[in-house]
Amino acid sequence: MNDIEFWFDFSSPYAYFASLDIEALAVKHGRTVTWRPLLLGRAFQATGMQSLSRTPVRGDYARHDWARLARRAAVPFCLPDVHPIISTMPSRALLWIEDFQLELVAPFAKAVFHAFYIENRDVRELTTVLSLAENVGVRSVWDLELAVTSGALKDRFRQHTEDGVRRGVFGSPFFFVEGEPFWGHDRLPLLDEWLARGGW
Amino acid sequence: MNDIEFWFDFSSPYAYFASLDIEALAVKHGRTVTWRPLLLGRAFQATGMQSLSRTPVRGDYARHDWARLARRAAVPFCLPDVHPIISTMPSRALLWIEDFQLELVAPFAKAVFHAFYIENRDVRELTTVLSLAENVGVRSVWDLELAVTSGALKDRFRQHTEDGVRRGVFGSPFFFVEGEPFWGHDRLPLLDEWLARGGW
Repeated sequence: MNDIEFWFDFSSPYAYFASLDIEALAVKHGRTVTWRPLLLGRAFQATGMQSLSRTPVRGDYARHDWARLARRAAVPFCLPDVHPIISTMPSRALLWIEDFQLELVAPFAKAVFHAFYIENRDVRELTTVLSLAENVGVRSVWDLELAVTSGALKDRFRQHTEDGVRRGVFGSPFFFVEGEPFWGHDRLPLLDEWLARGGW
Repeated sequence: MNDIEFWFDFSSPYAYFASLDIEALAVKHGRTVTWRPLLLGRAFQATGMQSLSRTPVRGDYARHDWARLARRAAVPFCLPDVHPIISTMPSRALLWIEDFQLELVAPFAKAVFHAFYIENRDVRELTTVLSLAENVGVRSVWDLELAVTSGALKDRFRQHTEDGVRRGVFGSPFFFVEGEPFWGHDRLPLLDEWLARGGW
């Protein structure tokens, strides 16, 4: 268990920004990243919180903060026309890819984020998700298509989200290292320090 | 205007942790700290959020995070028996001290935080606030007592809180540098970088 669990919802801009940094952070500390998609809307039920975009004042701040983080990262971030979204389709696809071509999980996740936040593409759509999967090298897009529309993968992603909620994931991004929880893009510096010092 | 505005509610543990670091951060960048107390409960009305301690799951995480930050800062932090509180009394006192002995604002604010989070004292009480003020060197505690119970200071603190809310303060701590907003203890590293680079 030498990994950093990276829990996220594709619909979360802060998860996107974290996705730009998390792999370098992991490499720095000799770790790997385990990508854990979940439905944040389900997690919000546990806390009574709601989407940042729909929270007055705080939503304005978040939009300002996202633009600032984008300038810092030198990426042409743009809030998608349709946002937030229910991110089941790319999330289910990620879980399937994890089983069959583990090495493509990170490229696929990053391709989804890029399509959504840079290219303003609707990543809820099956055709978009399949196209992104094919582009990063998924061998059998036909099998993937069958899988993401099957009941088994629906149940698995639902269960996956429930597991996250049960373990205390209430926001995105959310990280665990050896069970230690870190919430938020803005906790990455503390996570970095935690790994460097081996905790405290 | 070469200052860092530090907006906070004495009832916020994250503000306490920020208070331990903010002055060193300001000195590092040749700046001063302007201490701006407000009533977070009023700010919550604008966003529909509520006290961390009263938010399921997220409250558990916050308590874990506070203990972790306390170990990191090597302070004997303990969540007070009565928490959260309505922090009007020490906040009004701070505004009065700002007018008459500006140099005592930081020592007084830190004394209040220390009394609350280390000594578990009830900083809502007039006698506690007056005692803390006297200890840090306030000359006329008698005048302070008259002031904090007067209508003028009540109105002023209320107006002060409204000013913060109008400018978008929705959480504690909250910082401004030349109008640029930073929310949260966990945004201090970004604020540090912003000051070092002169923004971006």
